[in-house]
Amino acid sequence: MEPESELAPLREQIDDVDQAVLDLLARRLQLVAQVGEIKGRHGLPIYAPERERVMIGARRAQAEARGVPGDLIEDILRRCMREAYAHEKNMGFTQQAPDLGPAVVVGGAGGMGAMWVRMLGLSGYQVRVLDLPQSHRSAELLDGAGLVVIAVPIHDTVEVIEALPPLPQDCLLVDLTSVKTAPLEAMLRVHPGPVLGLHPMFGPDVDSFAKQVVACCAGRDAEASAWLVEQIRLWGARVHEVSAEDHDAAMGLIQVLRHFSTFAYGSHLAHEDRGLADLLALSSPIYRLELVMVGRLFAQSPDLYYDIITASSASLELIERYHERFGQALQLVRRGDREEFLREFATIGEWFGSYAQRFLDESTSLLAHADATR
Amino acid sequence: MEPESELAPLREQIDDVDQAVLDLLARRLQLVAQVGEIKGRHGLPIYAPERERVMIGARRAQAEARGVPGDLIEDILRRCMREAYAHEKNMGFTQQAPDLGPAVVVGGAGGMGAMWVRMLGLSGYQVRVLDLPQSHRSAELLDGAGLVVIAVPIHDTVEVIEALPPLPQDCLLVDLTSVKTAPLEAMLRVHPGPVLGLHPMFGPDVDSFAKQVVACCAGRDAEASAWLVEQIRLWGARVHEVSAEDHDAAMGLIQVLRHFSTFAYGSHLAHEDRGLADLLALSSPIYRLELVMVGRLFAQSPDLYYDIITASSASLELIERYHERFGQALQLVRRGDREEFLREFATIGEWFGSYAQRFLDESTSLLAHADATR
Repeated sequence: MEPESELAPLREQIDDVDQAVLDLLARRLQLVAQVGEIKGRHGLPIYAPERERVMIGARRAQAEARGVPGDLIEDILRRCMREAYAHEKNMGFTQQAPDLGPAVVVGGAGGMGAMWVRMLGLSGYQVRVLDLPQSHRSAELLDGAGLVVIAVPIHDTVEVIEALPPLPQDCLLVDLTSVKTAPLEAMLRVHPGPVLGLHPMFGPDVDSFAKQVVACCAGRDAEASAWLVEQIRLWGARVHEVSAEDHDAAMGLIQVLRHFSTFAYGSHLAHEDRGLADLLALSSPIYRLELVMVGRLFAQSPDLYYDIITASSASLELIERYHERFGQALQLVRRGDREEFLREFATIGEWFGSYAQRFLDESTSLLAHADATR
Repeated sequence: MEPESELAPLREQIDDVDQAVLDLLARRLQLVAQVGEIKGRHGLPIYAPERERVMIGARRAQAEARGVPGDLIEDILRRCMREAYAHEKNMGFTQQAPDLGPAVVVGGAGGMGAMWVRMLGLSGYQVRVLDLPQSHRSAELLDGAGLVVIAVPIHDTVEVIEALPPLPQDCLLVDLTSVKTAPLEAMLRVHPGPVLGLHPMFGPDVDSFAKQVVACCAGRDAEASAWLVEQIRLWGARVHEVSAEDHDAAMGLIQVLRHFSTFAYGSHLAHEDRGLADLLALSSPIYRLELVMVGRLFAQSPDLYYDIITASSASLELIERYHERFGQALQLVRRGDREEFLREFATIGEWFGSYAQRFLDESTSLLAHADATR
């Protein structure tokens, strides 16, 4: 028998199964939309980790009992839940401070600013946008404000804060900059009322706030900003409280050094000029992902990255120390010192502790997904 | 009405839908196993890109026609197909050279060696393992060999090749090392018969060969190794032909520099010692992934990485040039030269061309998956 005539009926049956799956997905999306509507009406967070955990555990057990891999059903359910979060992001959220005066987003036309304008609007607040073209109207737009959010480029933040007209005494003043010490000091200087420093650890390109992180640095009168923190949690984000100093030091490592290294690495690739198509042809998923993580930077705003990299002199010193350590490591392999390399490798491995293996597992699972989607 | 009493019936319905999905998945796995059995019997490759493309296109169109996002059904189907590949990897493959003498894997007890022992065995070859404990029997084990695969650590490869006893004239000699020029030269020197250099661009931890890349460098008598190339394709891998020189130059960028930078970066993190748990608490998915890609190295073999990094002096020079360019870029931001930074950023962006945006999209979609699976 020809293989095609043996395969054709099986493929038809697989297609039938897939269509039935499609029917169920459509039904599932409808049900989830109803859940979202109820949650929105009662002010419940869209992300319910405990319900997720229980539900996935039950489905895994059922799957494994009948020979279906637990990971398969878990991955599929999580993919469905992600769709649900993305849907629910536009559904409206319970307003945590119903009596608040207008919320003014300074820089509300930028990517991050626009995102906050939208989220505040979906949560029932009266939102005003104050951008350069409206700056002659700033006193008017800020009149009676209950919340002012500064969402302007890093290098402009302190200047914009200092140029603010006096705000209502009980107005909450917040900034969204990726450094926290200087903007927080400036806000405390110009405004005697409640002050909060926020740093959304994501760009305006994310699907929703769900599972993202917002760093939160106390300024003045934490009670007066509790509603906003709760509102952000309702949007699905994890709010992580941290001092401005610790935040800025961590950002040096997490953000600044990473972006700078990526810039330098991209520069090196471009100047070595080996032909990206050839490099990709030789790249298995793990190496492709490395190239993807470099190349993605250069589809984004150079000004933003310049601002992030140069925002603090402490971060530049951190980069300098990295450059020196890199040179030392290079000396080490240059002189063929295997023993010292192994010792240093072990030291680093100890620092990562059990995370090293967890990260290996996590990336293996993620790469398996990357394989599957190409 | 209490939210819980409104939500409970909807959640029950969602659970019913999910159980029905589970039934369909179990059915789908059975059908796919039958397809795999037929493919194996007829020697068809397990990975059928054209059938995949058509099938996914059809399902996307149906989904979108009824308001289900096309990406949702595509992601779920690809996840199912990945499961199928992982299942099929143990199913047996059509033997491409049924009359071949025994296949001997030198270093067959190591991770990569053991993988080839398994794959050759699943494809019907008589496989022998030659490791250090058997080295006194090497003449006996190599007697009559139709294929010899060298799968030993990089720094031992040339030495092991040079220590081989004379092989049968028509025996195919192959190595799997991550550098290609020196091993290929050594194989051509010691063996007058067919020779092929291979570099599987993945570790022994992958699910299967499906969608992985094997670099392939011609040695001698390409016709005599055509069956092996075809066999590897049957296992699901993409075989990419490249000269040994181009391969080694590309590996400098893809593999050596990447591994070395990661080592240096890990060293920097460990010495700055900011507390990994704190860094993770502040990391949104994109930064978490950056940390994951660094930390995963340190759960792996330090000897392997030392060998890869130091295998070629050309690669060490490449690292040195990167270190210099890094220093120049650092000067640039140190002196606050925004204009020059923007110019260089644009130059790099041009080098990446349309890949920059593709990479951004690819990583966004991958990260959305990472969000969903935590």
